[in-house]
Amino acid sequence: MAEKLSMTVMTGSIDRLTGMAILAGGAAGMDVEVEIFLQLWGVYAFKKDVITENMHLSEFKEKGEQLVKRMKELNLPMWFDILKEARESGKVSIYACSTASSIWDVNKEDLEMVDDIIGAGEWVLKSKDAAITLFI
Amino acid sequence: MAEKLSMTVMTGSIDRLTGMAILAGGAAGMDVEVEIFLQLWGVYAFKKDVITENMHLSEFKEKGEQLVKRMKELNLPMWFDILKEARESGKVSIYACSTASSIWDVNKEDLEMVDDIIGAGEWVLKSKDAAITLFI
Amino acid sequence: MAEKLSMTVMTGSIDRLTGMAILAGGAAGMDVEVEIFLQLWGVYAFKKDVITENMHLSEFKEKGEQLVKRMKELNLPMWFDILKEARESGKVSIYACSTASSIWDVNKEDLEMVDDIIGAGEWVLKSKDAAITLFI
Repeated sequence: MAEKLSMTVMTGSIDRLTGMAILAGGAAGMDVEVEIFLQLWGVYAFKKDVITENMHLSEFKEKGEQLVKRMKELNLPMWFDILKEARESGKVSIYACSTASSIWDVNKEDLEMVDDIIGAGEWVLKSKDAAITLFI
Repeated sequence: MAEKLSMTVMTGSIDRLTGMAILAGGAAGMDVEVEIFLQLWGVYAFKKDVITENMHLSEFKEKGEQLVKRMKELNLPMWFDILKEARESGKVSIYACSTASSIWDVNKEDLEMVDDIIGAGEWVLKSKDAAITLFI
Repeated sequence: MAEKLSMTVMTGSIDRLTGMAILAGGAAGMDVEVEIFLQLWGVYAFKKDVITENMHLSEFKEKGEQLVKRMKELNLPMWFDILKEARESGKVSIYACSTASSIWDVNKEDLEMVDDIIGAGEWVLKSKDAAITLFI
């Protein structure tokens, strides 16, 4: 069985989403499967009408402009582009939490890159055999 | 040995606590044991004089009212009610960090649903054999 | 092979860094190896010109003064002193993410307690065999 990185993504902040995407890309590049479960703000951040517009930071909001400017200088892609590239490996699956999807009143078609909507119990079963489990 | 979900809960924000409670409920429903270790703001949020009053969000504070309204429309229980129900399975244990309990000057009786106060070293030993480990 | 606690540290907030340091100290005291990977704000918080000056909290910022006062009353060391002591066991290794190090334009010498700068893929490989994996 392939080794797996399992990430539960509660956050909708682009700093933490960038960390998540970099880990997903690193894992896919090392032949490690990646499974992602979006909870509350995670589902919100993957909405098609939010994903590229969202500039929310979880910390140090006063450094936001400096950070974005520096990332452009370094030609670093945005978190969703890092994740899109990681998904081209075929090793990355993304699920949205059914409760959170009800809260935002969205289905799979309203969300970018989401493969399925599942419940938390099913997610726990999926995560049990992962080598690495993280809550973002 | 039963499979186990281990969550270290630093947060006192109700969005992240809701994600935690939904995972605890999902795990208990799948016959997976749950052990929770409360650190700083986690201990604060479980104080009997705080638990039902606390409305702190970790992110997107400007969406707080919309979120609470929507959760009421959907008849979603609050995080502590989800956790209380999960605890009825007998599969959920909650520990408070001894250092954090000193900071808030509380003992077990001041905290809701807490089974014991333990040190971080003991917690690390408990977590070592968990299938899923998360920091909330 | 020794058991291992692997922590990916995105945060630069001293409340979450304190939780991380207490877990690192608890693990080292129980003969569990600790590996830490600093991402964005984590690298920032370990900068030599930031580490002792930074007072950023992730939550409940209005309780910051009360918290610091209480920690002084209890003679609790700051998070970096807890981590320094844990490192004296020889069981704690700290790595900085190469991308984040580019963003802050720092090398190893600009960072406190950092053993090496590595990529996310290498970090995923290191974390795969850890008993406990956390994202802080």
